[in-house]
Amino acid sequence: MTPPLQPLFAQRLARLRTHMAEAGLDAMLVFAPEHLRYLFNYSGEAACGLLSARSSWLVTDYRFIEQAEEECMHHEWRRGVATELLCRDRQRERLGEALGRLLADLGATRVGFEAGHVSVAQWTAISADLPGLALLPASDLLVQARRVKDAWEQQQLRQAAALADAALEALRPEIRLGRSERELATRMEQLLQSLGSEGLSFPTILGFGPRSALPHSAPSDRPLQRGDLLVLDFGAVVNGYRSDMTRSHVAGPAQPWQQRLHDTVSQAQQAALALLKPGVSGRTLNDAASAVLAASEFAAHAGPGLGHGVGLVLHEQPFLDTVCEARLRAGEVVTIEPGIYIRGQGGLRIEDDALLLDGGHEILTRAHRDFELPL
Amino acid sequence: MTPPLQPLFAQRLARLRTHMAEAGLDAMLVFAPEHLRYLFNYSGEAACGLLSARSSWLVTDYRFIEQAEEECMHHEWRRGVATELLCRDRQRERLGEALGRLLADLGATRVGFEAGHVSVAQWTAISADLPGLALLPASDLLVQARRVKDAWEQQQLRQAAALADAALEALRPEIRLGRSERELATRMEQLLQSLGSEGLSFPTILGFGPRSALPHSAPSDRPLQRGDLLVLDFGAVVNGYRSDMTRSHVAGPAQPWQQRLHDTVSQAQQAALALLKPGVSGRTLNDAASAVLAASEFAAHAGPGLGHGVGLVLHEQPFLDTVCEARLRAGEVVTIEPGIYIRGQGGLRIEDDALLLDGGHEILTRAHRDFELPL
Repeated sequence: MTPPLQPLFAQRLARLRTHMAEAGLDAMLVFAPEHLRYLFNYSGEAACGLLSARSSWLVTDYRFIEQAEEECMHHEWRRGVATELLCRDRQRERLGEALGRLLADLGATRVGFEAGHVSVAQWTAISADLPGLALLPASDLLVQARRVKDAWEQQQLRQAAALADAALEALRPEIRLGRSERELATRMEQLLQSLGSEGLSFPTILGFGPRSALPHSAPSDRPLQRGDLLVLDFGAVVNGYRSDMTRSHVAGPAQPWQQRLHDTVSQAQQAALALLKPGVSGRTLNDAASAVLAASEFAAHAGPGLGHGVGLVLHEQPFLDTVCEARLRAGEVVTIEPGIYIRGQGGLRIEDDALLLDGGHEILTRAHRDFELPL
Repeated sequence: MTPPLQPLFAQRLARLRTHMAEAGLDAMLVFAPEHLRYLFNYSGEAACGLLSARSSWLVTDYRFIEQAEEECMHHEWRRGVATELLCRDRQRERLGEALGRLLADLGATRVGFEAGHVSVAQWTAISADLPGLALLPASDLLVQARRVKDAWEQQQLRQAAALADAALEALRPEIRLGRSERELATRMEQLLQSLGSEGLSFPTILGFGPRSALPHSAPSDRPLQRGDLLVLDFGAVVNGYRSDMTRSHVAGPAQPWQQRLHDTVSQAQQAALALLKPGVSGRTLNDAASAVLAASEFAAHAGPGLGHGVGLVLHEQPFLDTVCEARLRAGEVVTIEPGIYIRGQGGLRIEDDALLLDGGHEILTRAHRDFELPL
């Protein structure tokens, strides 16, 4: 983290503290790795965060303490934003004991915790060491706070999308008949990493022919054959922020049904994009795309759901589906990814990442959309 | 899964049912992805398993149903072993409702669940749909059942270790002064995938110079300099089974303190390996290695803990530390990985995977152990 980022982190902590005050919480226990990164710039594992109105702590152990010192930069931060580090000896002190000690020092009595990010077993053990405190599920606080991305986050998401575009551009000449799903997916992952992706946004999904109808299948040894549909779903990571893009092609000239399949999905995506701006609800977007699919000959094979938020987590709020009444806001980034999946025959999905801006949106993923590959 | 594997899966289900009967459970809810793979051969996501004395179910949704049909092969299995699939419409039925329906059909009243693998929030929602049932945490059942690996699992672990050996052999000539941690770690990951690893066992750890003292740090842009210590920790995956190996080197001739550091860690590892056979406790192994470290000039910098089980999960039972009284058994696979971490100066760890056999053990990781790289 460079010094210019420190004010961003200070803003995040301040915003969280406002939400905590509104929820009547003296302190908050943070378990999700993505939230430790969001609040403290910590990208390691095996840590727990504690936030109160005036202080913040990161509790970890000897394996990650140097990384925490490097990343959290607590010494250089001014008081009130500074994150203190606690290096726990796991053989001598349970996590609940360490947290209990800190909470007692803070005089906290109403303590929120991320119920969506701690297991029943782990929480049973921790809470047994926190008698006398009101422990309140508060999973949503950080999930909601992360929905709107600040300018720096938007830039990371833009870069992740651009990196994925470049990887696909580099892969295109290598897509040849006879190469297997696994070979090409592995090659895509190598290109992503060579171009600078921090690991993968998720394991690459690549299906040929009938296997293109598996929305989330792992690549197999099936070779690409002329006339196959090809669905490729992949992403890059930049400073923890993820991209998520799907492109669908046909290997050679499209058969009429394949072309209709492509046109239907493309129109469904356009129907949603035409409405995509701050103020629209997830349900409205979903319904617009669904209406196109439902009116087509492929209605029985339409995949449910339209898309999801994307950021430090691949699938995050908001989820664009039939029950999403939430209004989208400027600064949110969502995928728009209608799909049709005909079992045993083939499927097709087109997915882009869009950043909501005042009055409209910006498409972050810009890779080619041509359907037929010249094979 | 090929037909010869079916008896192995049948044995696993039968063994689990015995453990369930001993624990007085009519049914068991399985959430951990690695346990869905272990019991049902399912390698997808977003699924929940249900096991009773006579039946087994996998509940998933449209995204993964075809994968489940491919992998679980329920149609070809004989009755009593067959896994039934339930494709839930997530917009119409909550997971708890679907599970409640199945449990009612089975007449189950005492239901175990994997408390270590379901979040507090998710379990709160599911259990609200399961009134009138005794819901009992039973995380340990599958964790313990997986400790001893059958012959097929041992073969996967052997192959994963051999694949990692081959990747390191291929990387060796590419380790040159001036190349960064990130470059070489990325190259290692490409080699692992090219050689056939299913993704990565874990993100590669590679530290040079003072950064070698970070036991679990992410690779940086620091270039390799003459005289640097270099710690490389990485692994491969074969059919879900992982390897985990660390090699430590010095770039060029070792300084005397570096050689002593290496010899100390190597002797600590040998002290543990000399005792490694069925019947020994994790604590005894840990203490043997610790005694060597504690008697050295580096005593103040010894890393705690000696190693862990490895299989479908990277870090699994048994954990070899000062409190591990469990006796090791033939068929278990553990890492033996003593380390010394001198902050600001450098660290060193040597890690191998060992399969316990009657009367002794087999080292699965066989890559070179030479300390000085000819740079």
